[in-house]
Amino acid sequence: MLKNDLLLRAANGQSVERVPVWLMRQAGRVLPEYRATRAKAANFIEFVKNPELAAEVTVQPVDILGVDAAIVFSDILVIPEAMGLPYQMIEAKGPWFEKTIKSAADIDALNIADANDLNYVMQALQKSKTALNNEVPLIGFCGAPWTILAYMVEGSGSKTFSKAKQFLYTQPDLAHRLLEKITLSSIQYLKGQIESGANLIQLFDSWAGVLSESHFYEFSLRYMEQICDAISPLVPVTIFAKDAHYALENISHTSCNTIGLDWTINPAKARALTGTKTLQGNADPCLLYANAETIVRETTAMLNAFGKDRYICNLGHGLYPDLPKENVKLFVETVKNFRYA
Amino acid sequence: MLKNDLLLRAANGQSVERVPVWLMRQAGRVLPEYRATRAKAANFIEFVKNPELAAEVTVQPVDILGVDAAIVFSDILVIPEAMGLPYQMIEAKGPWFEKTIKSAADIDALNIADANDLNYVMQALQKSKTALNNEVPLIGFCGAPWTILAYMVEGSGSKTFSKAKQFLYTQPDLAHRLLEKITLSSIQYLKGQIESGANLIQLFDSWAGVLSESHFYEFSLRYMEQICDAISPLVPVTIFAKDAHYALENISHTSCNTIGLDWTINPAKARALTGTKTLQGNADPCLLYANAETIVRETTAMLNAFGKDRYICNLGHGLYPDLPKENVKLFVETVKNFRYA
Repeated sequence: MLKNDLLLRAANGQSVERVPVWLMRQAGRVLPEYRATRAKAANFIEFVKNPELAAEVTVQPVDILGVDAAIVFSDILVIPEAMGLPYQMIEAKGPWFEKTIKSAADIDALNIADANDLNYVMQALQKSKTALNNEVPLIGFCGAPWTILAYMVEGSGSKTFSKAKQFLYTQPDLAHRLLEKITLSSIQYLKGQIESGANLIQLFDSWAGVLSESHFYEFSLRYMEQICDAISPLVPVTIFAKDAHYALENISHTSCNTIGLDWTINPAKARALTGTKTLQGNADPCLLYANAETIVRETTAMLNAFGKDRYICNLGHGLYPDLPKENVKLFVETVKNFRYA
Repeated sequence: MLKNDLLLRAANGQSVERVPVWLMRQAGRVLPEYRATRAKAANFIEFVKNPELAAEVTVQPVDILGVDAAIVFSDILVIPEAMGLPYQMIEAKGPWFEKTIKSAADIDALNIADANDLNYVMQALQKSKTALNNEVPLIGFCGAPWTILAYMVEGSGSKTFSKAKQFLYTQPDLAHRLLEKITLSSIQYLKGQIESGANLIQLFDSWAGVLSESHFYEFSLRYMEQICDAISPLVPVTIFAKDAHYALENISHTSCNTIGLDWTINPAKARALTGTKTLQGNADPCLLYANAETIVRETTAMLNAFGKDRYICNLGHGLYPDLPKENVKLFVETVKNFRYA
């Protein structure tokens, strides 16, 4: 039994004494302790594949920042790799794929991955679970199928993902074939994560925002929906479709439990559009560059705007590496000390 | 008198026989003719500063694509340069500033620019005007003050503009001082553009989307409002705040005539939020990678969604350099041949 289950109760729509808080990329470079552990691995990919080191940085923010959940340290691009499309992480540039997906033959050559193909993530979860000692829930995750396709076709990060979008416009049938393979892989991967101890699953659709509304429904949301239908009977599921402001209402019609919001979303408007779903977010990460007074004022305003129940406090995106650690702590403490009138 | 004034009538809310169409970045690499002219200049900055060459590429798309307006070929970063902060355009990387704004002294050292400081743009407008021979209107433009500040502080393009946003969070008073100087410079610059022949002005807030709603109002919209109030009594003004989905209603409360929309905005929702303002946009640029059938179908659906009046057809962002020229032409022809039932 978990000693602190605020996150799960909030995700399930149950009442809580106080709002739970965690931070996207809390296991990351903002912590000097993370950078020390990271230095033990030769490169980012080896770091991700080392269950001991991954578990170490997974647990760090619970101890250091006092957050109400741990999220397993990993990368969304482990799925393309497990399907047969390896990547490199290039310093200051981001991910890069030597081979990209262009044709039906490229798609046919891909595996449907399962948990065995990602055994190092399963081990990282198990080791994290042991180290957490049931203090707080453990979050598992994967990329949304569209976001994974975007990298597999584009071959790297991009401002526009115009190659990946060109693929949707010119080869929609192939896109669906690839999305189906990614979806099946993701469901098996997430079921493995749950068996290895994940208490909640988050889907990251990091590049939802480059799609038009109709393309988001056709090429992204329907596959996230399949994942939600497979996973939400097991543990609560969060959909975080960054910049998909246009789709909040339709996201709320899926079987997800929680909807993640980026910092451009107005809390009251989001409440009006999403029925009884739990909401997560949505402070601007750059708020944590500000002075203490501003951080406390803006965080308090956000807490009041969302209200106590069906709310998980977080940022609207991941922590930036150069945010001051003490400001991150202040954000967490402000949430934990706040009491609704 | 203009022979084709569809754009101006649409911007002014008057009824039109058919919807006018032009394309952001129509004077650009999508045209082989542009690339030929571009090759005559040593680099991008010299190209921008050469009024003959700039006028040549300004007029090209009117002849080649048959669009209903020309937009003067220039760059939004001529304003920082005229204020005393020069930049370079680095191939495949984008703009780069050797010196950036960090302190009050940096801001005090900046000039307030006027049309004389940007005489090469005035000449480009005048030469374009002569070459256009009153066939279609000529559009002038500048960057929104926030977007200009973003480059002056960040020093380059960025996915997050986290340095520029840090400046807003930590030095709001300095940010306002800088925004005021940019705003005054922009108003003088735009008045010069109108005297040199611009029939309509567009403000590009390319990085509106990285701001939170409250920061957009505080650091961006109020300065665009000042520009609209100074310029809209002279010629119609368009505000294009990319990704500022959250602000459409408040943008409609300014004295602008037209609101530009990116491709994530639903036309019916935009109509409901913006009263009687003219709307401009909003096809996904990647649509123009698709086959002819898809281009015609999606463009027709968009024309029906916006309706005939108070609408200027365009993309939701600039043309990408590798879009096929014949697809761009098909888009323009589809709009020009379309008749509302």
